[in-house]
Amino acid sequence: MAKRVTIIDIGSNSVRMVIYEKVSRFAFHLLHEEKSKVRISEDAYKHGGALQEIPMQRAFDALSDFIQISNSFKANKLFCVATSALRDAPNKKDFLQKVKKELKLNIKIISGEKEAYFGGIACANLLPMQENALSIDIGGGSTELAYIDKNNVSHPLSLKLGTVRLKELYFDADDIEGAIRYIDEQLQMLPAMKVETLIGIGGTFRAISSSIMKRETYPLNKLHAYEFKVTVLQEFIEELLNAKSNKELKSLFINSNRFDVIKPGTLILQRLIKKINISKVITSGVGVREGVYLSDLLRNSKHKFPHNYNTSVRYIIDSHIKDRQFSNNLSLLAKKLFDLTHEYFGIDYKYRYNLALAAKLYPAGSSVHFYSQNKHTYYLIKSALEFGFRHHDIMLIATLTKYAKNKLPSSTHLQLYKKLLPKEQVTKTLSFLLSLSIALLSHRPRNLDFELQFEKNTLHVNSSKKLYLSKEAVAKLECEHQKFKVLF
Amino acid sequence: MAKRVTIIDIGSNSVRMVIYEKVSRFAFHLLHEEKSKVRISEDAYKHGGALQEIPMQRAFDALSDFIQISNSFKANKLFCVATSALRDAPNKKDFLQKVKKELKLNIKIISGEKEAYFGGIACANLLPMQENALSIDIGGGSTELAYIDKNNVSHPLSLKLGTVRLKELYFDADDIEGAIRYIDEQLQMLPAMKVETLIGIGGTFRAISSSIMKRETYPLNKLHAYEFKVTVLQEFIEELLNAKSNKELKSLFINSNRFDVIKPGTLILQRLIKKINISKVITSGVGVREGVYLSDLLRNSKHKFPHNYNTSVRYIIDSHIKDRQFSNNLSLLAKKLFDLTHEYFGIDYKYRYNLALAAKLYPAGSSVHFYSQNKHTYYLIKSALEFGFRHHDIMLIATLTKYAKNKLPSSTHLQLYKKLLPKEQVTKTLSFLLSLSIALLSHRPRNLDFELQFEKNTLHVNSSKKLYLSKEAVAKLECEHQKFKVLF
Repeated sequence: MAKRVTIIDIGSNSVRMVIYEKVSRFAFHLLHEEKSKVRISEDAYKHGGALQEIPMQRAFDALSDFIQISNSFKANKLFCVATSALRDAPNKKDFLQKVKKELKLNIKIISGEKEAYFGGIACANLLPMQENALSIDIGGGSTELAYIDKNNVSHPLSLKLGTVRLKELYFDADDIEGAIRYIDEQLQMLPAMKVETLIGIGGTFRAISSSIMKRETYPLNKLHAYEFKVTVLQEFIEELLNAKSNKELKSLFINSNRFDVIKPGTLILQRLIKKINISKVITSGVGVREGVYLSDLLRNSKHKFPHNYNTSVRYIIDSHIKDRQFSNNLSLLAKKLFDLTHEYFGIDYKYRYNLALAAKLYPAGSSVHFYSQNKHTYYLIKSALEFGFRHHDIMLIATLTKYAKNKLPSSTHLQLYKKLLPKEQVTKTLSFLLSLSIALLSHRPRNLDFELQFEKNTLHVNSSKKLYLSKEAVAKLECEHQKFKVLF
Repeated sequence: MAKRVTIIDIGSNSVRMVIYEKVSRFAFHLLHEEKSKVRISEDAYKHGGALQEIPMQRAFDALSDFIQISNSFKANKLFCVATSALRDAPNKKDFLQKVKKELKLNIKIISGEKEAYFGGIACANLLPMQENALSIDIGGGSTELAYIDKNNVSHPLSLKLGTVRLKELYFDADDIEGAIRYIDEQLQMLPAMKVETLIGIGGTFRAISSSIMKRETYPLNKLHAYEFKVTVLQEFIEELLNAKSNKELKSLFINSNRFDVIKPGTLILQRLIKKINISKVITSGVGVREGVYLSDLLRNSKHKFPHNYNTSVRYIIDSHIKDRQFSNNLSLLAKKLFDLTHEYFGIDYKYRYNLALAAKLYPAGSSVHFYSQNKHTYYLIKSALEFGFRHHDIMLIATLTKYAKNKLPSSTHLQLYKKLLPKEQVTKTLSFLLSLSIALLSHRPRNLDFELQFEKNTLHVNSSKKLYLSKEAVAKLECEHQKFKVLF
C-alpha cells in the first residue's frame, strides 16, 4: 500500500485536495490539505448544467497547482474524483480531455450513490459508533445520504439538491415556495427507515454546527463528533431562515463567504428533518475524500478497521511515543489498580477503558518538551485524538493526562468542561489512579516488579526492591479519599 | 561527544539528576529530570557539618534509583557532582566510599569557585545576553556568585551562606540579628564591581520569582528569563520577611515545602541587594547542572556557543521541522518583504530578526497536526523556545506564528500579552508580513521564483508562473494598511 496518497475532490463549490501519509498498517495522518473556492458550477444551472468558460479555467488553474503540490510531497497514488458539477455537465468531456492532456490527470466522475457511500464509510469508520443513523452531505449541486448502522453502510442515495443549484434556480429569483416544493419532491425518494441520529457532512453542515457551538459556548473547539439535540438544530434553523440581512447572518456566526448559500442549504436540512424522526445530531469533519482514502486503505478488510482498532490512538503512539514499554506497563498498571479499587471507590466499570488509554498515551507529551509533559500530552490528545471518540471521552482522557502528576484536577478546569466530564468525584478518582500508576513506576526498569493487594482501605505494595523514589512520589500525591492508604 | 549525558548534583537540600540528549552538534534537549528531596545536610550544621546516618541513607537510596534510571536511558556519560554539603562534611569519606563501592559511582566534590563558575556559564550561555551582571545561587549550605558580562564569566565566589545552614544555626534559635551579622560578614568577601543586573539561580530564587509572577498576573508562564525591576523584588522581600505565619507565607504564594527555608534565603538576598546597586533582576531556570553539561558540550569552544547560534532554535528545527527548504525559503522571503516595506510601514529594523525567526519556525507545528498548525507552532514556541531569548521576543515570535494564516492578531490576544508585545500596529504589520510570505509560497516547489518590487503602496509580484493559489491566498489576507496592494 502506498505510503502517501493524494485525493482531489472536485465539487461544485470548491476543489479540495488532501494528502495522507500512512505511518503504520492502518494509521495515517493528514500531511497536507488544500482548498480553492473555484465554484466550477458558477452560472451552470442557468445553462442546463453546462460549465462556463471562466469557472472552468479557474478549476484548471487550481488543479494545475494542486498537482504540483502533490508531486512535491512525492505522493505514490493520486485519486481525483468529481461529483455532481461534472456529473451533470453536458460539456464535461471538453474539460476532462483538457485536464487529461495538459495536466496528465484522470478525473473520475463518480455516481451519486458512490459519493453517498464514500461519505458513509468515512462516518462509519471515523465517528464514534452510531446506530440507526442517516448521513447527509449537502453539496453545491447534490445532496448525498446513506444509512449507517454501527460500521455498516447501506442505502446510498443522491438527490439533485444543492446549495448553488437552489440558489441559482430559486433563491436568486426569490422563489422560496418553489424551492420548498422542489426539495420536498426530491426527498420523496428517501426510503422509509428507522433513523435516530442525523450525521452532518460537508461545508453547510459544518457552518451550522460551528455557529451552534459558538452560541452554546461549548468548551471544546472541535467540530468532528460534535453532538447536539435535534431541537437545538431546529431552533437554529428557524432563526437562520428568518434572518433578514447579512448582518443578522453575521450575528448568527455565519461567515461572509457563506452568506449566499447558507439559506438554500439550511432549507434542505429543514425539510429533511421534517420528514424523519430523529433525536440527536452529530457533526462529521470527514466525508467523500476520507471515504475515498479509506476505501483504498481498507480495501482488503471490507472497508472496516479491525475490531478494537482506533486509528487516532495508533497515530499518536506511532508518532509521539518513543518509550512503548513504559506506555504499555503504565496502562497495565492503571488497569490493575482500577480492577482492585473501582468498587471501593464506586467508579463505574465503563471508565476502565478511558483510564487505560490515558495511561497509554501519557508519555506522548515528552515529544514536545520534558517539562510539563502532562500538559503537552493534554494538548496533543485534544488536537490529535480525533477519530472514533465522543467528545466526552476525549475530554476525560485528556483531563486525566493533564493532572497526571501530583495534583487533582483543578476546580476551574472541572467547571470549564463540566458539560463533557463525568461527576467531579469520578474524574478526581480516575486522575488519582493515573497519578498513582505513574508514581509507582518511578523506578527503573519500569516493570511491574511488585505485587499489589488491596484490603481494608489499604493498597499493599510488596516488592523485593526498595522503591525509594516510588515511595517518595506516592507520598506527594493528592487524594480526596482520606482513608485510602498505600503501604510499601 | 556522547549523545546522552547524565548529570547528578548532590545539594544540601535535594539530589537532582538531569539527562540530556544531543540532537545535533550544539543542540540538546532534556530527556529526563529527577529530584529527590533527601536533605542530606539535615542536622549536619549542628554537628559541625558531619552528615547524619539517616539522611546519608536517604541520599544513598535516591542515588541508587537515579543510577538505574540513568542506565535505563543508556546514558553514555555520567557526571556526579557534590557541593557544600559534602565539601564541608568531616565524614564525607565514608559516604563517598560506600557509594563508590556499592553503586560504582564516583562523586566529584567541586570547589565553591567551580560551582559558582558552572552556574555562571549556564547563565552566560542560556539567558538572553546580559551586561555587568552578577549571578547568585542561594543553596542549602552555600551561596555562589559570579560576574557575567556578555558571555564571559569571571570572579567566581562561594560563601558559606545557605538556607539550611542559616535555619539550623540562627533561625531555629530565633536569632535573626545573629543571622544578619553573619551574612554581612560573609558578604564582605564580595569584590567591588559595577553591577546592573542580578541573575537569580536556584530554588529559593525561583520560589520568589514565581510568587512575584503570580502577584503581577504576568501573562507568560515561564520562569527562565523572567525579568522584573529591583524595586519589585525589594518590596516583595519586605513582605516576605515580615510574614508572621505560614498562612501569610501561603498568601504570598510560597509553597508549603519551602516554609522553613524561605526566610533564611530571602534574608541573604536582602542583605546582598543592600550592598550592590542594581536596577534589574532576571530569573534563571538553569544552574550548576546545565553548567556542568555545557562545560562538557562546549569544551572545545571556550565554553561558548558559536556566534549567532541559538541552541533552542536549533532544537526546534531539528526535532520538529521536516521541510527545511520551506522553512528556509519562508524566512528568506519574510526578510525580503521586510526589507522592501519596513520603512513604508514604519517598522523598526530590530524586528527583522523576530520576523525571520517566526517564519523559520512556522512549519514546526505540523509535527503535532496539520490542522491548526499555526496554533501548534505557537504552543511549541512558547514551550520550547527557552534559551537565549527575552520573554518579549518569545511572545512576539510566537504571536506571529499563531496569526500566520489569514487573520490579524485578535484584540483579546494583544490585550492579554500587552506587557510583552510591541505596539499593536507593529505586531499586526509583522503578522501581516508573515501571512503574506506564506500566501506567496502557496505554489510548489516553494521557491522564490518570482520578483518582488515595491513602489507607490504596491507590491509587484512578477513571475512567469500563474501562481493561481498564491493569488487566491493573498486575496484572503487581512491587512490594516488600506492603501497597501499586492499586484501579480
